[in-house]
Amino acid sequence: MQKVFPPSKIDHIGIAVHSIEKALSFYIELLGLSLEKIESVPSEGVKVAFLKIGETRIELLEPLHKESSIYTYLQKNGEGIHHIALETKNMESQLEQLMKNGVKVIPKTPKKGANNKQISFIHPHSTHGVLYELCSKIN
Amino acid sequence: MQKVFPPSKIDHIGIAVHSIEKALSFYIELLGLSLEKIESVPSEGVKVAFLKIGETRIELLEPLHKESSIYTYLQKNGEGIHHIALETKNMESQLEQLMKNGVKVIPKTPKKGANNKQISFIHPHSTHGVLYELCSKIN
Repeated sequence: MQKVFPPSKIDHIGIAVHSIEKALSFYIELLGLSLEKIESVPSEGVKVAFLKIGETRIELLEPLHKESSIYTYLQKNGEGIHHIALETKNMESQLEQLMKNGVKVIPKTPKKGANNKQISFIHPHSTHGVLYELCSKIN
Repeated sequence: MQKVFPPSKIDHIGIAVHSIEKALSFYIELLGLSLEKIESVPSEGVKVAFLKIGETRIELLEPLHKESSIYTYLQKNGEGIHHIALETKNMESQLEQLMKNGVKVIPKTPKKGANNKQISFIHPHSTHGVLYELCSKIN
């Protein structure tokens, strides 16, 4: 079996907001961060904005419609931190090791996410309350 | 007035847990991260553990007693992400600029936090739902 390396950095922190346009004024005008890009991810039902900070990003998530999981999250919790994404260099081995240890991973095979990356999530039940995303650049 | 620079990186992400000892097994044994140190911050009523990941840290927060704000947080929300700490090089100017723009900052003058840093918090009402900490190394 391939050696499993720990995640190398925090790729981004996902934050659920009602409106990217409204939230951006805090991040750009008051904190002084730079907007990197805005894109839509129809498969996830979200529009996302990336703000650069050091080696990582703040990812603002706005639902595109009421079927989006971010819409449901906002209805239940209001605006706030939704997930932490960890960059991994060996996605398959990492997922395999987690599942072998009884950790709930969704989906078991990575899917395509924002920013040209393959992603999967670790269920908060297995992590003491945090929704972690594992992500890896698609070559 | 001194020029205000944006925060330079995410210093750490604070995560509230019932027991650092129990949570560490996920971070160390399953994710493979390294524990940097554990310390008590009696002024905040917490024990904290720092796990290194890239240029930032995951900070696990365990309440020392029932008067701790982390104890109250856990009672209300359960385990999960509590705050995001941004490293700033010019704390006073940053706080001044935020307050000048009507942003709620607590406390208005930085206090001593974990890891030999001076800290202050930006209220979630001003940030679309996220409790941000500003922090800066004490020289």
